[in-house]
Amino acid sequence: MDIEALEAAIKAKNTSTFLEHAEELHYADLAAIFENLDDEERSFFTAHIKLEQFPDILAELPDTLIEETLERFDTTAQQKILSQLLDDDRADILQDVSAEARQRYLALLQPEEMEATRSLMRYDEDTAGGRMTTNVARITSDMSVKEVLDILRKDQNSTESLARIYVVADDDRLIGKVRLRHLAFSKWDTPVEELVQEVDITILATADQEEAALIFSKYDMTVLPVVDEYGRLLGIITHDDILEILEEESTEDIEKMSGIAGEQSEETYLNTPVLTHFKRRFPWLFGLALLAISSGYVMLRFEDVLSSIFLLALYLPMVVAAGGNTGGQAATMVIRAMSLGELEQGSALKVILKELRLGAMLGVIMGISIAAVTLLILPLFNPEIPPTVTLPYFALAVSLSLAIQITISTLSGAILPMGARAIKLDPAVVAAPAITTLVDIFGMVIYFTAAQSILNL
Amino acid sequence: MDIEALEAAIKAKNTSTFLEHAEELHYADLAAIFENLDDEERSFFTAHIKLEQFPDILAELPDTLIEETLERFDTTAQQKILSQLLDDDRADILQDVSAEARQRYLALLQPEEMEATRSLMRYDEDTAGGRMTTNVARITSDMSVKEVLDILRKDQNSTESLARIYVVADDDRLIGKVRLRHLAFSKWDTPVEELVQEVDITILATADQEEAALIFSKYDMTVLPVVDEYGRLLGIITHDDILEILEEESTEDIEKMSGIAGEQSEETYLNTPVLTHFKRRFPWLFGLALLAISSGYVMLRFEDVLSSIFLLALYLPMVVAAGGNTGGQAATMVIRAMSLGELEQGSALKVILKELRLGAMLGVIMGISIAAVTLLILPLFNPEIPPTVTLPYFALAVSLSLAIQITISTLSGAILPMGARAIKLDPAVVAAPAITTLVDIFGMVIYFTAAQSILNL
Repeated sequence: MDIEALEAAIKAKNTSTFLEHAEELHYADLAAIFENLDDEERSFFTAHIKLEQFPDILAELPDTLIEETLERFDTTAQQKILSQLLDDDRADILQDVSAEARQRYLALLQPEEMEATRSLMRYDEDTAGGRMTTNVARITSDMSVKEVLDILRKDQNSTESLARIYVVADDDRLIGKVRLRHLAFSKWDTPVEELVQEVDITILATADQEEAALIFSKYDMTVLPVVDEYGRLLGIITHDDILEILEEESTEDIEKMSGIAGEQSEETYLNTPVLTHFKRRFPWLFGLALLAISSGYVMLRFEDVLSSIFLLALYLPMVVAAGGNTGGQAATMVIRAMSLGELEQGSALKVILKELRLGAMLGVIMGISIAAVTLLILPLFNPEIPPTVTLPYFALAVSLSLAIQITISTLSGAILPMGARAIKLDPAVVAAPAITTLVDIFGMVIYFTAAQSILNL
Repeated sequence: MDIEALEAAIKAKNTSTFLEHAEELHYADLAAIFENLDDEERSFFTAHIKLEQFPDILAELPDTLIEETLERFDTTAQQKILSQLLDDDRADILQDVSAEARQRYLALLQPEEMEATRSLMRYDEDTAGGRMTTNVARITSDMSVKEVLDILRKDQNSTESLARIYVVADDDRLIGKVRLRHLAFSKWDTPVEELVQEVDITILATADQEEAALIFSKYDMTVLPVVDEYGRLLGIITHDDILEILEEESTEDIEKMSGIAGEQSEETYLNTPVLTHFKRRFPWLFGLALLAISSGYVMLRFEDVLSSIFLLALYLPMVVAAGGNTGGQAATMVIRAMSLGELEQGSALKVILKELRLGAMLGVIMGISIAAVTLLILPLFNPEIPPTVTLPYFALAVSLSLAIQITISTLSGAILPMGARAIKLDPAVVAAPAITTLVDIFGMVIYFTAAQSILNL
């Protein structure tokens, strides 16, 4: 493998072997290798890698490595690297460095590069504008196929995608598109006008990146044009941007759903320091622990009930946990459906009715199953029950509270994420751990109250 | 909006308005509308929609709707629809219908269509071969640019992507690629040989679809060629396939992590029947409930300890839940890192050491925090403690068991998914709910044992 050979060459500080293998490797592999090097090895890498290869590698590195890596080069090299970057990558990179470095780097750019970069940096990183590249092929409809091909040939290395070529009016308003294949198949004197197709789907630069991803996958697009409120073409979002967005958003959802807080880092799991992992996990953990003490407080209050039939302890963890499990399932389904754009604001009632039926069904069937298990198996163990309590009544108290707990928890699991969205919170944060801990408290109350009233304790 | 106008036209059975709006709409929107119609409205839709529009709509419908929808058409219409489908969509659709219908539909195809479809159906739906299309532009290196353009022009509607045109040898071995832009920019008598570029990255038809998605996003690809073990070009995977794969895989991960079983349906959350939702949630729920009874059994066994200091109940849910929460966090991080291809088989030890450090850190800091809260706040409530027990020792018992529980749970959360992978199980199934319930049991044991030995009960 070239990868291992390159790593060996770096370890051995063998410049010629290093160069030979580096040239063969993909920038994504080179970036992954670079990330795993120690400080001295990174210096060897940046001192010897061909400067033309480095911009692509830099764009793949995690945010936190950008500045220290660029600082390994002298000003001339920095200038070369920065000007070779695609404009959206350059804007991203400049947003990830310190204010001081940003000023220095911007000053190294050509005036038009600086202008394009500054205008991209106006948009938040997680909007369509923050994701787009301005390297888009633009033509006007009065050109001939030959004229267009001449322009494209000249720009072919600076335009990120030629899959769609956009036709704009004099004021930059987007008026149509031309496909490269139609240019390729047409005589050179054909007027472009004859090849122009309508553009149906565009996105506003200020729209959320998730919206861009939803449009892209719904309509099987290759390139999504980004416009301003006047319909002027600002740039394009391409499929590789969309893959990144989807990866980010899924990871974010999954992490939030497990009670992991804060910005997801761009670094891999193994390269993220233990302290960073700690900071993302501790706050939720501590909050949930305090909440769980409330469950304990409920248990404390029902000491009399529990001590009069201690057998209730056998089912206590089950009733409590069933709520967390069903609530978590419901929340997951609803949160995922929202992420995939399946639920509009108006469908809340449908979701509630659906989960109410589901919750009742799960609750009743679980209740009956557990009652059956109890009545059939428990007598075999000669359980300690006070003479005033009969086994059927005991099973009824357990099953009824289980059914109620499951119904209420399922419903809460569906309602809480939608409620969160209604007040502009990310639905994913109210998922599993938070819901579990909340419904645990209800579970305790329901269980002991049912036992108290059904068994006359 | 055209969408609402179309829906109104269907309700009013107004054919001309229906046709007018249907023509304007994207097939993805038409499919979403069709899915939400009742039986009679669907009949109106299929009776009047232009047959040329229907193949794209059909390909977007969920599996369970395919056969009943195709059966609304007569044989001639079925034949037209099936032959217009892209070959990968056609193979997918034939895999989703009954064996009887599959035979009938296959018999309607032209011999070469039948051949291509059968060969695609050989691959599992979730492999690279099952995802690829065979509609790929193939040329040989002895052609001129003009010859290639003539071929491509003839095939342009049947080849799904012209972003890459593949050069094959006589025996179909893949030997290179040509970009459409280079054809477009070259003189028509240029030999193709001069434009051929090397193909570095391919995937085997039998490889898992997840691998295809990983390669695609790692190397920012547009088209990924699929080959057999002899390096012969079988087809291509395009970026829209990858978006579907990523969506499917993320949903699957998220659902499994919340204890939702079975194949994810292609239908939206709201269109999935309550009974299907029930079947996917019940098995886990029931299994976890039985497991939770083991926790209850542990509690039952420690009746003496709990009744001698019932105040232990106040912290019991917290110690137990902290295990589930930290285990779930660790499992999520590890599962996600595996899904993103960050963890090779060899990095298990690194992960274990990292989570061990993290678990100990979380455990110690949580233990100290809870001890502090206990010593400062608990005395204000005049808690009932037997005279033989002092508050500092009580706090020590709680904190120590909390720290141990968190450390062990964090470690289990990391080890279990890796263990699952090692024995070829999907790591996601051992996530949150299963780990939570397992560590709950340990939590009970640790808590009561610590109390028993530290407080001499």
